[in-house]
Amino acid sequence: MRTVTYGAACSLDGFITARDGALDWLHMSRDVQEFMATYWATVDTMVMGRKTWEVAAALGGGGGTGGPSRVTTYVFSRTLQHIPTAGVRLISTDAGEFVRDLKRQRGGGICVMGGGELGRSLFEAGVIDVVGLNIHPILLGAGVPLFRDAGRRIQLTLTESRTLAGGCVLATYRVKRALVATARAAPAGRGSSTGRLSPI
Amino acid sequence: MRTVTYGAACSLDGFITARDGALDWLHMSRDVQEFMATYWATVDTMVMGRKTWEVAAALGGGGGTGGPSRVTTYVFSRTLQHIPTAGVRLISTDAGEFVRDLKRQRGGGICVMGGGELGRSLFEAGVIDVVGLNIHPILLGAGVPLFRDAGRRIQLTLTESRTLAGGCVLATYRVKRALVATARAAPAGRGSSTGRLSPI
Repeated sequence: MRTVTYGAACSLDGFITARDGALDWLHMSRDVQEFMATYWATVDTMVMGRKTWEVAAALGGGGGTGGPSRVTTYVFSRTLQHIPTAGVRLISTDAGEFVRDLKRQRGGGICVMGGGELGRSLFEAGVIDVVGLNIHPILLGAGVPLFRDAGRRIQLTLTESRTLAGGCVLATYRVKRALVATARAAPAGRGSSTGRLSPI
Repeated sequence: MRTVTYGAACSLDGFITARDGALDWLHMSRDVQEFMATYWATVDTMVMGRKTWEVAAALGGGGGTGGPSRVTTYVFSRTLQHIPTAGVRLISTDAGEFVRDLKRQRGGGICVMGGGELGRSLFEAGVIDVVGLNIHPILLGAGVPLFRDAGRRIQLTLTESRTLAGGCVLATYRVKRALVATARAAPAGRGSSTGRLSPI
């Protein structure tokens, strides 16, 4: 199964941009470059929402959008009509269902880019496998939040934690899943519950 | 100068309680007990807001409030009239000014307890020296936020990062301060700027 990673550089108070989208607080280092190079080598698909796409496109991002050039990028939007960029596909159907279907196909890692709106949809749909944060030593106070309320608790397992240059903390987690018995009000004679793989 | 520490156990998405104040997600371990015992030995003063006080009092907390018994506790509130508990003093003046004055007095460490409202006031006042987090491997989605917008960026220096039992990450930071030249529109013949120690 392909791994879906929700990763970002963030402030200690959980923002991925400062006010007005500012990113001047990001600390780039060889540590980060090496980590990202290793990660990008595992990825062949990026998914993002419209706002992230518009930022990426304004920065000159094409299919690569800062990542590897062999990737396919899917942009989720119900308002955009067309994206003319090679390697970038516009998706107007449900993001959770789409990514769930992507995971069933052959391929490499899937990277969720950008802000919390798409992240929330994908957490709600239970399709995110890994959360990876590069936590910067700053309190921004305001900006685009990394996480939004997915409507339930999501348990994680810490898989890696280490310090990077500049006082950044790299923390990687795997989303815990459990076989949950989902009670259904079913007619007599039919099964009254179904086991499904779901985040707890 | 006495050290003011803003510390908490929090979720990865920055909450110190879950919905309805729930704390059942907290992971207690010998690691945490040892760390806290070492920390409490440095503290002789706790400061908290009214809401945190009411939770602590309901849990049977007196002057100790879960911490060492030799501490003095200051509760900031403009609505409470009286707190009859020994070792607990009600303060209705400005929290930032009060803590700034406390720091000038002889004494041990000062621990800021509880949620983000008092924390914001103290960050705004520039009196917090250390931020210490025990980041739990969970996304709560909602609850009492650890940080609120202090109206400006606050730069930190990572001083410690290590993994605790249960997949928790302990991260400790020192608040960066810089000698800022504050321009003032002063009459000719008087100094036109003053250097002051301020968070950057």
